[in-house]
Amino acid sequence: METVSENRACGGVQGVYNHLSQTCRCEMTFGLFLPEEAKFGQIPLLWFLSGLTCTHENAMVKAGAQQWAAEQGIALVFPDTSPRGDQVADDEEYDLGKGAGFYINATQSPWMPHYNMWDYIAEDLPSLLQENFPLDMSRQSITGHSMGGHGALTLAMGIPKRFRSVSAFAPIANPTATEWGRKQFNAYLGDDKAAWAAHDATLLMKDKGFDGPLLVDTGTDDQFIDLLRPEALAQAANSRRQEAILRMQKGYDHSYFFVSTFMEDHISFHAEALYAD
Amino acid sequence: METVSENRACGGVQGVYNHLSQTCRCEMTFGLFLPEEAKFGQIPLLWFLSGLTCTHENAMVKAGAQQWAAEQGIALVFPDTSPRGDQVADDEEYDLGKGAGFYINATQSPWMPHYNMWDYIAEDLPSLLQENFPLDMSRQSITGHSMGGHGALTLAMGIPKRFRSVSAFAPIANPTATEWGRKQFNAYLGDDKAAWAAHDATLLMKDKGFDGPLLVDTGTDDQFIDLLRPEALAQAANSRRQEAILRMQKGYDHSYFFVSTFMEDHISFHAEALYAD
Repeated sequence: METVSENRACGGVQGVYNHLSQTCRCEMTFGLFLPEEAKFGQIPLLWFLSGLTCTHENAMVKAGAQQWAAEQGIALVFPDTSPRGDQVADDEEYDLGKGAGFYINATQSPWMPHYNMWDYIAEDLPSLLQENFPLDMSRQSITGHSMGGHGALTLAMGIPKRFRSVSAFAPIANPTATEWGRKQFNAYLGDDKAAWAAHDATLLMKDKGFDGPLLVDTGTDDQFIDLLRPEALAQAANSRRQEAILRMQKGYDHSYFFVSTFMEDHISFHAEALYAD
Repeated sequence: METVSENRACGGVQGVYNHLSQTCRCEMTFGLFLPEEAKFGQIPLLWFLSGLTCTHENAMVKAGAQQWAAEQGIALVFPDTSPRGDQVADDEEYDLGKGAGFYINATQSPWMPHYNMWDYIAEDLPSLLQENFPLDMSRQSITGHSMGGHGALTLAMGIPKRFRSVSAFAPIANPTATEWGRKQFNAYLGDDKAAWAAHDATLLMKDKGFDGPLLVDTGTDDQFIDLLRPEALAQAANSRRQEAILRMQKGYDHSYFFVSTFMEDHISFHAEALYAD
């Protein structure tokens, strides 16, 4: 692992690091914010998964999360959203290929050898973080924006007991129910509908739910709301009596202005779960 | 004036607007955050002047100022840092020409016809803002980062009674005392040392000071600190018994991570002055 940069921020350190990912078979970059408490012992970790076109950097500089993480003594990790490098397949569209990994292990060509973002977030990066930083991996929670909200929800439900709480900002909540979502799933997973179901938050909610608290915010003026389908997730979550706070925020859109507005709420929400017991 | 975008943020609206500037003789873009209170009457205004290479956008998305401005019921304006467009002279270096207006009215060729950033901030943009938005122009304060800190300090001292309080993050505090600063001043102002003095915060502090409170933060690990010269401003301010809080923040550098860390302090500081009497 190589240090790209470290900046003092909110009493702690905002770092950016490079490493060779075994699962993605390429160099990957991530951001990690460690509050001051990390000097004195192991601290809880909150994952922030980003949306389409983002790298590790967007949320790190625009979501305003560090100040609240510092207040709560929680570390923040900002992974990239896809494999990177010249050898990695790409597509001209913004919603496929680089910047659009969808937190899936691809089974189809040309995506298959590198696009293993599920395993990257679930196994590769956690091992690296545990080895190199003072993190209490028994206390993890996860959040994300848009495609990253989809990733947060599917990973939280797909790996039981890993995360204590899950939240999402404007998540892609039911991709198998839109033509747009089916396009991505077809590309990465082919026609395997069982594989699709494992990466659809609404279907996972119907099937198994999440063993912990859930918070979702979506803006009423989100320009992509028809692709997100918050109503499908809400119906599934309420139908199974999932512990949940599902909010539609009047007048907000899909931007980071929306994300940063509600970041304090999300980090407080996760802190409560991370510091329980 | 034309609306480029409006996003709901922190209970208010983050807008971006375009207009034809008479002083810069080109189209200019600025960001304006209006908190919810703007619906009900005129509110105070805080200027944020940005640093080298920035547009209106950088601080707007990275400084995390809106949440604190919303809490205090204060509007924020984020002007651009230079004239723009194909007809505007430029330089290959990052510190001259576009993105590097230095909040000066240039008297030298090829900068002269467009580079009038002092007048743009002092006259042109205030008129436009007053005409189009519910702002109480009798309650204005100013802050900025790096070159924008220089702009904030020099405008606050150069236009007595305009601003109730002034603050700066890592300002270029004494440009006439460095070879680097003299390079810019020579380019824009020629050899006119009296003109230079009107754009050097330390010399202005020695000469006239500021009739109100001053707050300056600089990081001890700022990579440009030898070009900033906070020690010169501190000496000048303390020598004239200027009301001031001058802080060196241990371990912080020149980045927006530094700016956003201390933004809450700066906005609280200005709020106190803006809401006095």
